Amino acid sequence: MNTMETWLYSLITRTPQEGFELAIVLSQRGGVLYTQPSEEIRELLRPVYSTNADSLIAVSQVIAINFQTVAAANNYWRDPPRCR
Amino acid sequence: MNTMETWLYSLITRTPQEGFELAIVLSQRGGVLYTQPSEEIRELLRPVYSTNADSLIAVSQVIAINFQTVAAANNYWRDPPRCR
Amino acid sequence: MNTMETWLYSLITRTPQEGFELAIVLSQRGGVLYTQPSEEIRELLRPVYSTNADSLIAVSQVIAINFQTVAAANNYWRDPPRCR
Amino acid sequence: MNTMETWLYSLITRTPQEGFELAIVLSQRGGVLYTQPSEEIRELLRPVYSTNADSLIAVSQVIAINFQTVAAANNYWRDPPRCR
Amino acid sequence: MNTMETWLYSLITRTPQEGFELAIVLSQRGGVLYTQPSEEIRELLRPVYSTNADSLIAVSQVIAINFQTVAAANNYWRDPPRCR
Amino acid sequence: MNTMETWLYSLITRTPQEGFELAIVLSQRGGVLYTQPSEEIRELLRPVYSTNADSLIAVSQVIAINFQTVAAANNYWRDPPRCR
Repeated sequence: MNTMETWLYSLITRTPQEGFELAIVLSQRGGVLYTQPSEEIRELLRPVYSTNADSLIAVSQVIAINFQTVAAANNYWRDPPRCR
Repeated sequence: MNTMETWLYSLITRTPQEGFELAIVLSQRGGVLYTQPSEEIRELLRPVYSTNADSLIAVSQVIAINFQTVAAANNYWRDPPRCR
Repeated sequence: MNTMETWLYSLITRTPQEGFELAIVLSQRGGVLYTQPSEEIRELLRPVYSTNADSLIAVSQVIAINFQTVAAANNYWRDPPRCR
Repeated sequence: MNTMETWLYSLITRTPQEGFELAIVLSQRGGVLYTQPSEEIRELLRPVYSTNADSLIAVSQVIAINFQTVAAANNYWRDPPRCR
Repeated sequence: MNTMETWLYSLITRTPQEGFELAIVLSQRGGVLYTQPSEEIRELLRPVYSTNADSLIAVSQVIAINFQTVAAANNYWRDPPRCR
Repeated sequence: MNTMETWLYSLITRTPQEGFELAIVLSQRGGVLYTQPSEEIRELLRPVYSTNADSLIAVSQVIAINFQTVAAANNYWRDPPRCR
């Protein structure tokens, strides 16, 4: 694995939407940045999947899985916490 | 990531069906709006996946994953809450 | 999203099998009814996926994910509840 | 949905292996029996997926998801229960 | 389902790595041994998926799902248990 | 299964990013090292999936699933723990 600068400090976000956007960051990091470190190749791949319906659905699925993690970390932004 | 207007305020919904419909919104946002910001291309893709059985099944899967998150956030709309 | 009549009142079912059948309903609603509102096209797609082994396996997967949600909502139909 | 005889009485099993086998039953029911009620067609599909490596992996995945549900229902067959 | 000898006694393992290896066993059992009982055919399929990148990724996914189950069963090998 | 040296000592990490990187390790081990022990073949496969958008998305998904496990093990790196 590459030694990388710190990019993930916390799973805690102020709002659900920030949590969703963190899930997108996690989805982009996983598999892509770590598996294909070349920015040039990544740029070549982007138009391929961003214009393919099934690829976009697959991206949505990865985001959904990461959003489960982030949402649980934030106790679903329930305030006051119900689960206490 | 694009700076976006606020579209996700809370995971809490009044009813299971509203929760399911929120899961659909999350599924459409993830991967699609963020990954393919062009509305024109999205409109071109829509007839492709909406008439393909396997794409529709894949969409169902993303919704199912997001519904897990929303349902957990709402403590499964159990009333009175059983898990207390 | 279409304005729809109420079709999902509760995730609570009396038995595991009713819960499984609710998971099937959720799987059919997600992605299909909401993404492809035309009943005519849905009828055309049905013979396609119902005779394709991989499509049927993918359908099973969506149902399995929704069944996780329904089973958790019902505290796995454990009676008397163990998790108390 | 078809009216079906009762086939799922409980998610509770005596042992992990019985739980795994229940997960297999759930995987076969979902998508297959309910989506393709014709036994004749199901028999035709069986040799297709049972000799295809990717189909078998996909089947394993559905079983793994259902096993998560069954294992949670049984509190992972921990005895004496640790999580109490 | 075949009557099988007992192969799964417990989800509890001493270490995370043993848990990971149990997840591999569960992934091989599900779908493969139960769905394709012929050892001869299984041997024919092995070189197909073990040299195909996408098949290997799919295998990794099944293992990841089963590892979630095993890790939860073992309370993530946290010692002393934090979640109490 | 091969007898392997110990490579997985704990799911506990100091930071979320270390947890994410552990999830990558788990994703590489599962399916790949255990299913395809030949380093030579693995090296041949790497350029195949690392330049294919859909393969990279699939890798991201495996990492997302493993990250759920690692994040839960670490109680989402919440400090002080909220869920107590």
